[in-house]
Amino acid sequence: MQISELGEFNLIKRLTESVKLHNASSAKGIGDDCAVMNYGEKQVLATTDVLLEGIHFDLTYTPLKHLGYKSAVVNFSDIYAMNGQPKQLLVTIGISKRFEVEQIEELYSGLLLACSKYKVDLVGGDTSASLTGLTISITCLGEGENGKTVYRNGARQTDLICVSGNLGASYMGLQLLEREKRVFCQVKDPDFQPDFATKEYLLERQLKPEARRDIIDELAKHNILPTAMIDVSDGLSSEIMHICTQSNCGCEIYEDKIPIDYQTAVAAEEFNMNLTTVALNGGEDYELLFTAPLKDYDKLKEIEDVHIIGHITKQDDGMNLVTRDGQRIAFKAQGWNSLKE
Amino acid sequence: MQISELGEFNLIKRLTESVKLHNASSAKGIGDDCAVMNYGEKQVLATTDVLLEGIHFDLTYTPLKHLGYKSAVVNFSDIYAMNGQPKQLLVTIGISKRFEVEQIEELYSGLLLACSKYKVDLVGGDTSASLTGLTISITCLGEGENGKTVYRNGARQTDLICVSGNLGASYMGLQLLEREKRVFCQVKDPDFQPDFATKEYLLERQLKPEARRDIIDELAKHNILPTAMIDVSDGLSSEIMHICTQSNCGCEIYEDKIPIDYQTAVAAEEFNMNLTTVALNGGEDYELLFTAPLKDYDKLKEIEDVHIIGHITKQDDGMNLVTRDGQRIAFKAQGWNSLKE
Repeated sequence: MQISELGEFNLIKRLTESVKLHNASSAKGIGDDCAVMNYGEKQVLATTDVLLEGIHFDLTYTPLKHLGYKSAVVNFSDIYAMNGQPKQLLVTIGISKRFEVEQIEELYSGLLLACSKYKVDLVGGDTSASLTGLTISITCLGEGENGKTVYRNGARQTDLICVSGNLGASYMGLQLLEREKRVFCQVKDPDFQPDFATKEYLLERQLKPEARRDIIDELAKHNILPTAMIDVSDGLSSEIMHICTQSNCGCEIYEDKIPIDYQTAVAAEEFNMNLTTVALNGGEDYELLFTAPLKDYDKLKEIEDVHIIGHITKQDDGMNLVTRDGQRIAFKAQGWNSLKE
Repeated sequence: MQISELGEFNLIKRLTESVKLHNASSAKGIGDDCAVMNYGEKQVLATTDVLLEGIHFDLTYTPLKHLGYKSAVVNFSDIYAMNGQPKQLLVTIGISKRFEVEQIEELYSGLLLACSKYKVDLVGGDTSASLTGLTISITCLGEGENGKTVYRNGARQTDLICVSGNLGASYMGLQLLEREKRVFCQVKDPDFQPDFATKEYLLERQLKPEARRDIIDELAKHNILPTAMIDVSDGLSSEIMHICTQSNCGCEIYEDKIPIDYQTAVAAEEFNMNLTTVALNGGEDYELLFTAPLKDYDKLKEIEDVHIIGHITKQDDGMNLVTRDGQRIAFKAQGWNSLKE
């Protein structure tokens, strides 16, 4: 059977459905942003990501320092999505012969800049030759307080659905970069300068995203413990379905509440794309999507850059987007792949 | 600068020499078999390895189930090399389109078999498309007792140097597989059957190695705490140099004490290779190389499959192999790459 017939989520399910946990220290296995381990007073969180040249990044327009930074940050984001603090990083790279030492140093300088900014220690890794392209594989360990780790499966009926920041900007940044690359390949002029004026924010969201430590800090400061949380890497649509499926509930998300930056809107118009589709399925936003009890409404309203976009319903009601004109549209099981292909 | 000019160890050194540890939980960073974290009563050990098609494995002769098994076991070996117990595994794979679901299931069945045998839980990972070949990246977490974690830097003058099992067999297994592959490519007969009779042990050492949990258990049973330990992945020569350099000491290893299986000797003869070179630099043995105080001599002699091969000297005496005819030859800084290229 071809892997494309099955899809990524089903492949993972098929490969791991027989997995059972036996060790006392294994608190939570496959199926969340991180694995969770009990090794004493603190919970240990672990997440891992692989970034492959040509699949996850294109070195035509991705500076290596930015790539290093982003590779680290997307892992920190997974730790924050469990309400934890990232602490250690292990970095493995496979390098083909076309790379020079100085380039790998650039990559590392980005990694270390992210570590420094987020107060994470680089503690280990592995370096290898590669026959083709650049392979980056990162594992991040983090610390969680017992009883405060937030999973995907804790959303309850009437909970508010919140998201930080805004959505779709990173995806539009990618579209811009891809367009300028196509133009560059056509004009074949080495002095060609891409035109990104007024689009800087979109590029930054794509090339140098940040993880929302500030939101985790604000939630703690306001004494709010989310009932479920996930970071938006594949797109809001895909992530809210993970929360609802694992929490055995439904949801209503209001189209007019989805936070979108004006630059994203302008770019979507320019590319003749549906703005809501971009925001729902673009992905790589690395914002936090979480649910919280209704009683926290007033406190949530006080936190800057957190937006209440809907609420949790009972499972039978399904997972729905309520459009501007009041229609209910069921979310479909599509990740970012469906949009990009 | 080309990476080949610098070499793997120097590249890692250059990339990581500015790294400092800031978090209280980071007990040991780069430079050992594992990173070590303090998260309460237990120490958390973490190790990561990347395996790239064409560099670390050749699917012409590597069954996917064996590959999965080996990928897991080599990580367990790193945890044992710290005197810890492996507990959790995170597995990331990049898969190109030529793979079918059933093949990835084969790979996973090997991974899970290893997990089951070594009592390790598969707790997470990531699956991605890949443009070229198969990429496997594994992180293993393990548990260490406070005060009993063994690093590379604890060897002291007069300590005994010990190694488990035997050396060079895996490397000769690889030579056999490579030879039969060349023959197969020449005859172009799809019914061609390679001739591996009487060589099964060498193939098993290459394709399905085991990690030496039994040695860790025996050492504990005999109340022996090694002063330094490392697993033999790059070759005895390279590993003893890591121990000596990090412990600021020298060593004498006796050529006639190096344990070698007779099948390894027969194959080295057949390939017209120097047997000692094969044993010293072959690598992928996944045996444990450790040092222990002289007072433990009698206890060490009691443990089956542990061989005393030399002793630690002072740094000024250098790192030497004492040959059968009594000559002293300084170990050179060569990993497995030098032998294979």
